[in-house]
Amino acid sequence: MSKYSRFWEFGRKIICVGRNFRAHAKELGNEVPDDPIIFLKPSTAYVREPNKIRLPPNTNELHHEVELGLVIGKNGSNITEENAMEHVAGYCVALDMTDRDKQTALKKKGLPWSLAKSFDTSCPVGDFLPKEMIRNPEDVRLWLKVNDVMKQDGQTDCMIFSPSKLISFVSGYFTLEEGDLILTGTPSGVGPVSAGDRIEAGVNELSSIKFLIE
Amino acid sequence: MSKYSRFWEFGRKIICVGRNFRAHAKELGNEVPDDPIIFLKPSTAYVREPNKIRLPPNTNELHHEVELGLVIGKNGSNITEENAMEHVAGYCVALDMTDRDKQTALKKKGLPWSLAKSFDTSCPVGDFLPKEMIRNPEDVRLWLKVNDVMKQDGQTDCMIFSPSKLISFVSGYFTLEEGDLILTGTPSGVGPVSAGDRIEAGVNELSSIKFLIE
Ligand SMILES: [Mg+2]
Ligand SMILES: [Mg+2]
Ligand SMILES: [Mg+2]
Repeated sequence: MSKYSRFWEFGRKIICVGRNFRAHAKELGNEVPDDPIIFLKPSTAYVREPNKIRLPPNTNELHHEVELGLVIGKNGSNITEENAMEHVAGYCVALDMTDRDKQTALKKKGLPWSLAKSFDTSCPVGDFLPKEMIRNPEDVRLWLKVNDVMKQDGQTDCMIFSPSKLISFVSGYFTLEEGDLILTGTPSGVGPVSAGDRIEAGVNELSSIKFLIE
Repeated sequence: MSKYSRFWEFGRKIICVGRNFRAHAKELGNEVPDDPIIFLKPSTAYVREPNKIRLPPNTNELHHEVELGLVIGKNGSNITEENAMEHVAGYCVALDMTDRDKQTALKKKGLPWSLAKSFDTSCPVGDFLPKEMIRNPEDVRLWLKVNDVMKQDGQTDCMIFSPSKLISFVSGYFTLEEGDLILTGTPSGVGPVSAGDRIEAGVNELSSIKFLIE
């Protein structure tokens, strides 16, 4: 059993990338960014099955975003693109649950996104997938269903910034530590979920998660 | 020795509050907020003497902000204002180092602040001050000198949201855990520092820190 198999118990930070898929940037009416858009979730955002996703305070519109997570297996900062994948221990399927209404309001005011992105249970994660299980993280399928209806279905080769580029970029700002998680962005098809809804999401046919909205 | 005396070694999150002093909100040309403005730093942002504060990538204007830190000593979420101070184990003097130029650019674009606020060494902290050492956190003096010149000198009774209010508000979004730190905002007088500058800052005459900019 890998020491990373329960990364959510000891990892100290979650680094997230926004608008990393052209089609998703467009569906929210955003420009395609020049540099990666970075925000953070704390480890209290993790939630595992069979626990439920909870609504943050004053939510009108909680959105699902399915993402590929990179689990860091080797500390480092200022990592080159060439060496980036050496710092990855494995992967997971993850959700970047987003209070879209609140995010929109915060964006308009130029305020930080944390209240909309980083609340308790905003980061549901699946099992740890050792690196060998995904030959090429730029060639996996991310999919998500709500109540059995397919909502998101995208290939990671549509990423604007590759996993290696992201690791190199973020490690210039934040020292990466074992157990950290990097969320690499969501394909198009994001949308609202309500209390009682069931989200099912996965990476290829390799790993899937099922979460209820409380 | 309190188990919190080295909170920066095991604490997993730093929750920060922006514009919590009227005079500081005004000096940056911002409105006084209705709700607390919340952002996060990861634990890799901590730096202790005698280590130096490092400039993040592509910085033009690194600013100092001296703040009172609340060290959490008891887990909790949805904490009432009445019970809030029970969750505080103690205090520290802290700096919220800010890439002001980058923050301004991110604000204009409605983007998250993490690259401007949460980089390595963006959270220098002083020694843990057990709760008994500060009778009333709403009545302390925060001061900061750059190269021996006083730049910030403010009383925490000018806070817009009190420590109790902040704990209650943030714990609705983020479960607080032992060793977490809450930064309560900076008084007016923020300004730039450059390589070689020396920052000295403190809470009353109780605790002070000295950091060089690398
Ligand atoms: Mg943020
Ligand atoms: Mg996302
Ligand atoms: Mg501040």
